[in-house]
Amino acid sequence: MTRLGSLLWRNLRVYQIYGANTDVGKTVITTALCKAARRLYRDELTGYLKPVSTGPGHEADEQCGCPSNHITKYARGVSCATLHQYDLAISPHAAAVGKKTPKDADLLSSIYSHLIKAAGSGSNSPDGWFFIETAGGVHSPGPSGTSQAELYRPLRCPVILVGDAKLGGISTTISAFEALTLRGYDVEAVLLFEDDQYGNADYLRTYFSDRHHGVSVVSVPAPPPKNESHGSEVEDAENMRRYYDEASRSDAVRDLLSYLEGRHSARVTRLESLASQGHQRIWWPFTQQKLLTPNKITAIDSAHGDFFQTLRLPAQQEKDDYPAKREEPSLSQKQEPLLQASFDGSASWWTQGLGHANSSLTLAAAYASGRYGHVMFAEAIHEPALALAETLLQGMHGRDDNNKSRLSRVFYSDDGSTGVESALKMALRAARTRYGWAVDAKLGVVGLEGAYHGDTIGAMDCADPSAYNEKVEWYEGKGVWFRPPQVICRGGKWRVDVPAEFGGEGETSYGAESLTDVFDFRVREGRGEHLLYEAHVERVLRHHLDKGRRFGALMMEPVVLGAGGMVLVDPLFQRALINVVRRSQHLFSPESTSRHDTEPDDWTGLPVIFDEVFTGLYRLGRFTASSFLGLGADVSVHAKLLTGGLVPLCATLASESVFRTFASDDKTDALLHGHSYTAHPVGCQVALESLRQMQDMESSGRWAPFQSGWANGTGASDDGVKQNAAAPATDSERGCWSIWSPQTVDWLSRHPSVDGVWALGSVLAIHLASPGGAGYTSTAAVALRDALRATNRGPAQNPWNVHSRVLGNVLYLMGSQTTGPEVVGEMEELLRRHLS
Amino acid sequence: MTRLGSLLWRNLRVYQIYGANTDVGKTVITTALCKAARRLYRDELTGYLKPVSTGPGHEADEQCGCPSNHITKYARGVSCATLHQYDLAISPHAAAVGKKTPKDADLLSSIYSHLIKAAGSGSNSPDGWFFIETAGGVHSPGPSGTSQAELYRPLRCPVILVGDAKLGGISTTISAFEALTLRGYDVEAVLLFEDDQYGNADYLRTYFSDRHHGVSVVSVPAPPPKNESHGSEVEDAENMRRYYDEASRSDAVRDLLSYLEGRHSARVTRLESLASQGHQRIWWPFTQQKLLTPNKITAIDSAHGDFFQTLRLPAQQEKDDYPAKREEPSLSQKQEPLLQASFDGSASWWTQGLGHANSSLTLAAAYASGRYGHVMFAEAIHEPALALAETLLQGMHGRDDNNKSRLSRVFYSDDGSTGVESALKMALRAARTRYGWAVDAKLGVVGLEGAYHGDTIGAMDCADPSAYNEKVEWYEGKGVWFRPPQVICRGGKWRVDVPAEFGGEGETSYGAESLTDVFDFRVREGRGEHLLYEAHVERVLRHHLDKGRRFGALMMEPVVLGAGGMVLVDPLFQRALINVVRRSQHLFSPESTSRHDTEPDDWTGLPVIFDEVFTGLYRLGRFTASSFLGLGADVSVHAKLLTGGLVPLCATLASESVFRTFASDDKTDALLHGHSYTAHPVGCQVALESLRQMQDMESSGRWAPFQSGWANGTGASDDGVKQNAAAPATDSERGCWSIWSPQTVDWLSRHPSVDGVWALGSVLAIHLASPGGAGYTSTAAVALRDALRATNRGPAQNPWNVHSRVLGNVLYLMGSQTTGPEVVGEMEELLRRHLS
Repeated sequence: MTRLGSLLWRNLRVYQIYGANTDVGKTVITTALCKAARRLYRDELTGYLKPVSTGPGHEADEQCGCPSNHITKYARGVSCATLHQYDLAISPHAAAVGKKTPKDADLLSSIYSHLIKAAGSGSNSPDGWFFIETAGGVHSPGPSGTSQAELYRPLRCPVILVGDAKLGGISTTISAFEALTLRGYDVEAVLLFEDDQYGNADYLRTYFSDRHHGVSVVSVPAPPPKNESHGSEVEDAENMRRYYDEASRSDAVRDLLSYLEGRHSARVTRLESLASQGHQRIWWPFTQQKLLTPNKITAIDSAHGDFFQTLRLPAQQEKDDYPAKREEPSLSQKQEPLLQASFDGSASWWTQGLGHANSSLTLAAAYASGRYGHVMFAEAIHEPALALAETLLQGMHGRDDNNKSRLSRVFYSDDGSTGVESALKMALRAARTRYGWAVDAKLGVVGLEGAYHGDTIGAMDCADPSAYNEKVEWYEGKGVWFRPPQVICRGGKWRVDVPAEFGGEGETSYGAESLTDVFDFRVREGRGEHLLYEAHVERVLRHHLDKGRRFGALMMEPVVLGAGGMVLVDPLFQRALINVVRRSQHLFSPESTSRHDTEPDDWTGLPVIFDEVFTGLYRLGRFTASSFLGLGADVSVHAKLLTGGLVPLCATLASESVFRTFASDDKTDALLHGHSYTAHPVGCQVALESLRQMQDMESSGRWAPFQSGWANGTGASDDGVKQNAAAPATDSERGCWSIWSPQTVDWLSRHPSVDGVWALGSVLAIHLASPGGAGYTSTAAVALRDALRATNRGPAQNPWNVHSRVLGNVLYLMGSQTTGPEVVGEMEELLRRHLS
Repeated sequence: MTRLGSLLWRNLRVYQIYGANTDVGKTVITTALCKAARRLYRDELTGYLKPVSTGPGHEADEQCGCPSNHITKYARGVSCATLHQYDLAISPHAAAVGKKTPKDADLLSSIYSHLIKAAGSGSNSPDGWFFIETAGGVHSPGPSGTSQAELYRPLRCPVILVGDAKLGGISTTISAFEALTLRGYDVEAVLLFEDDQYGNADYLRTYFSDRHHGVSVVSVPAPPPKNESHGSEVEDAENMRRYYDEASRSDAVRDLLSYLEGRHSARVTRLESLASQGHQRIWWPFTQQKLLTPNKITAIDSAHGDFFQTLRLPAQQEKDDYPAKREEPSLSQKQEPLLQASFDGSASWWTQGLGHANSSLTLAAAYASGRYGHVMFAEAIHEPALALAETLLQGMHGRDDNNKSRLSRVFYSDDGSTGVESALKMALRAARTRYGWAVDAKLGVVGLEGAYHGDTIGAMDCADPSAYNEKVEWYEGKGVWFRPPQVICRGGKWRVDVPAEFGGEGETSYGAESLTDVFDFRVREGRGEHLLYEAHVERVLRHHLDKGRRFGALMMEPVVLGAGGMVLVDPLFQRALINVVRRSQHLFSPESTSRHDTEPDDWTGLPVIFDEVFTGLYRLGRFTASSFLGLGADVSVHAKLLTGGLVPLCATLASESVFRTFASDDKTDALLHGHSYTAHPVGCQVALESLRQMQDMESSGRWAPFQSGWANGTGASDDGVKQNAAAPATDSERGCWSIWSPQTVDWLSRHPSVDGVWALGSVLAIHLASPGGAGYTSTAAVALRDALRATNRGPAQNPWNVHSRVLGNVLYLMGSQTTGPEVVGEMEELLRRHLS
């Protein structure tokens, strides 16, 4: 787990030196830079670190424990160190075989600690330069075997790339640049030796100035060759000394340091002004900007895995208005890290499946971009779109009670809202056509109170009036919405609360031993708990029928109402609702007496739409949330996790029965809906990779530690459990489980500030007690959110915090599908600490 | 210009051999492969091509003119050739200095011709293997200086990457793989020498099997070292002969060839089934699938620049139903190329600005993905989102009559439709708040007949009833729509046709000398031509006011109605409409007598929304289409070209006056609209790169040849004109221009099958004479579209065609902003040929 800040200080200009290949002169060039920095910035610190060093050539220097003899020999006054030294001059991962090998996270921590000390060292002026030299090429493996470009990425230092001046070096230099760029590094400069024969420097200078402004290409003379004869060490050393002296005094190197100094200072200035500049230019979604001061805006410098890198605000600015008068930062402020890791507690608005900056997703996106860019999709087909359609349809298969799925068609759009609109058009047309209604018949949807389906007008009209929509001019709720029974854990007990209007005796609630028991329909239907639900549904639908109302679809989010307040709906109620709708043509079109001659996958009653945008694709632990209901949809909508947290894409799946409705000899009977970037290859390819990775995680038992915790109620991940062995085969065998432990759920459910809590899949929803009323306008959860977000969490030198979102009185925390037990454990501990 | 097909034959398995670096054993490994192929596939062709060879080591072989002595010496029976030979053993671009250098396109053509011959060679069995060896590493420059990975990309051969077994070779191999992958190559195998000391092969085998299934990693023994002593050439040659003999007989190489054979055949099978599989699984946008047979579906294998690579259908299948009974292909079918270049004549539904598979866009996308993935945007800020907002606002500045812009805020969404919905919410709220209307007041929009704003319900409701929407259940046109005067070229004359309802005397039409004259408002307003328009607008609005109707916004596509039928609207009319709306508060809210105390950027009358999704960002030759009207919007919507043809993203820009409407102490007064991937960094970064490139093209005079053609009426691009010198400084100085020549417009306008024609920016719209009536349901343009799309265009051995789209009786052709004069010329010639 890496929740270290990236390496950025106001005073310390830190660079990582990567090489286009091994043996391109990294050490020589770094030594020259160090020497020049030491000479030109005499009052400042010049630091050098080699995290991992291989090869016997570097005798440890007695004075500083630094084995980089070039630095100690030729660049006096540079503070230098090596963290891990291996004697063999081979790749670190090979040299480390049989040796004590540092874990990636530990290696990063020791680098971080080293830099923290450096930033604080020196009392008069802590300003300075720091160069961290890697080993070999950009993808040369570190001690654990991880490619260095991946290994060091969480620290995201700006990079000086040492290019290759030899034959072939143009290619290795550009490739290394691209490998770094596609991992989100900022390559600030390419340095390489001059070579008249190949002229690589000239080529690269033109190449980068044409394509990548801001990458400075600098050539320095090559070092003098070593004498072949024995006994000439003194002469060699004198030659090198002269070489370094000249190189460090060269205009090119001086200009480079000056350029880097300017870039560093511009980066800090820009980062610190992001919030205030954004405050003047950006219109944020779902944000009352009159109440938003710049100090409340999170400036995100980058992200990796579960964590953002956010700009730390000085403590006094957290509360004050911003921009505070800009003053010269104090000495201690200059020594403080500017960035901190922030746990992305909303999974970036519910999109993250595979962690931020996942390089497999990056490469998938880049491949599709390089192969296609975008290609228009109407009446055309390309591999990623077809393969994704096949994967989605296959993934939905076999998840309902009948071990199959009705879905056979995939329609692409850009986001959940547009996907819902197309689903709606499909379903309404199917119902209208079958029942012979006129095109201007007023058709509504049947849905749930608290529904949320998106912000375009058609999607909005499928939701009941609420704070989200009631002030929107063209909003017109078109439907009937059932208030759903809710599942919640209170005081250590799981229960289902049934609204009074269901007509149970007094206030009805069902208890359950566990969350999995709530989903045990065989037992619950055996007890007849669904009968109350079915009777209520029939009564209400009959009432609307009698008033002459018409409905064209049942639309709902299976299992959980997301934006509507993180409500866990009683799945038995959703099942009952679907069953009644499907058997009740007479409640929707009593005049159409002829029974539709059904094929097995035909819809009956009304087409059923599942909006799985939030709940599907492993959010709740399963490929499709419909698996929890044992019933499949006629149309279902999938987005968010579909692309693993990278780019927008939506897939609306439909049954052949619905699809056939649009078949006609008239082209205007077709589904006349489409977006320019429909089925854009980048999105489809990323989705394929994302689904592949999540399906691999499921089949390889990656989540078994969480599952076993919920199965035996201990909730602790048992490190001793062999993951593969513990992986159950089917959704229902696995029951209900969450990455959040049942112990924490139990503890929270008994806390006096908590009204109730539930966890499922990657979601933990804490309904806080809210004396002033719950709902979107409640502010009960804001205090907890602010406490989690306060800076200076963690040890003073490694600040981190939690970025979470609230929905009225609900604070939720949501991991990605790759979030591991260690991070979850830390977040749970933090929650408990803040609620104690 | 490259309109060659990618290298794919049924019978010939063609691979390109790239190296992770120079001197990694490309030639040795290729020779071993050739020898093995020759031995194992004795009845087939084995071919070898070195397009560019450097170095004196390769004496030309007398027999075949092939300088690759390893092949001729050790792999007898292989058909081999070199196209360009340079003596110096340095990078081709350096070796070619002072020599006759082939242009990239010519080099590709000669490779293509060579392969065409190979596929047809041998009469009994044309099956075979073909290996094309590159020089140096993946990014080593070709003769022209272009990186080989870029240079050869249009041919998109599957790749065998020769990895680097030396120290540092893990890094160079992975980097080279990534450089190829991000250009859309399929790397099928990595081959490298065995080396016990570094063990690169073992590492790479694990690396690729973990991350990239389908990339086979194969190691072969290293060749024997050369003897140091002189006079041992015979022994060296014997050693090599023995080495090649063993290597070509090894299980690893045999298995690899068998693997490659399977992959080739699977690729062809899959490609040929894409259309029929898609036909069963995909629900296409805007497509009547009952009328869509698989043979009408375009299977797109890849794309590059202006061209798709599409699967060629055998001629008889073009008309027949599909899938035809699958028969063993005939000999001649096996020899035919499977892919052809297809000009992307709709710019992929109007998205392409910078050509397909633009590697700068790819790298921009990959960088943002590697730096952020996606990060949630509510109350947060990141660099690409802010920088893009700044670039957009700056780009809009100074384009109206007052040399400024009202726009100061950027709201992000996912596509034009969602961007229009947010624009609508902004404008309606602004009007309703100022005029004190109730939330349930029925507000309409003022717009144009033939408008199209998107397919979500809110966007649909802004358009007048038409074939697009009249069968959609929830569609309810909310507004008043003016039938606009149209600009068209007929019989060689530009004219403006004014509808009769404007009340001019008889049928009104204005003539003009040129298209630029139509936009000369000083002259036309001097003649009073706007007075008729203003009077009509006032009369109609007054009529609706008297009937009690309320309007909340003026919404329109400036200059061109796109999906509504490629109608060029008289800009003077749009100007008049805006001017009347802005001065006529009394026509919208007569009861609100207090005049709004205006600041300079305040909206008056109604907020004006420009939907620039189609027309903006250089589509019509200018950053914003509003520049043509001399009037800026209060809210404007930008998408499509925004991201240069890669991923969906939309930016809605608004004035501070509109923005302020939502400021309140109540958070539910905010604009409660947002999408999960709002301001996704990948999209923002790509948009930044896209705008940067287009702005560079504008400022560097890239379009000067087109502009000068329109300025002097000759239309021919004058190659002698120095581009920079010819670039006028401002929009109005440049006047109206198009990539399509005025000669072709003139020619088309006089053709009997053509009702009228116009061209502006990258758009050429041909309104065909349609006796059965124009509009979306007309089929007048289909015949021309089908003729352009017929295969076997171009020379028999280099088939290519044109993929275009029609809108009713309109066939349009649209280039990207990078389409050059040569491609335009070919397309124009083709048009003329088909209409003759």
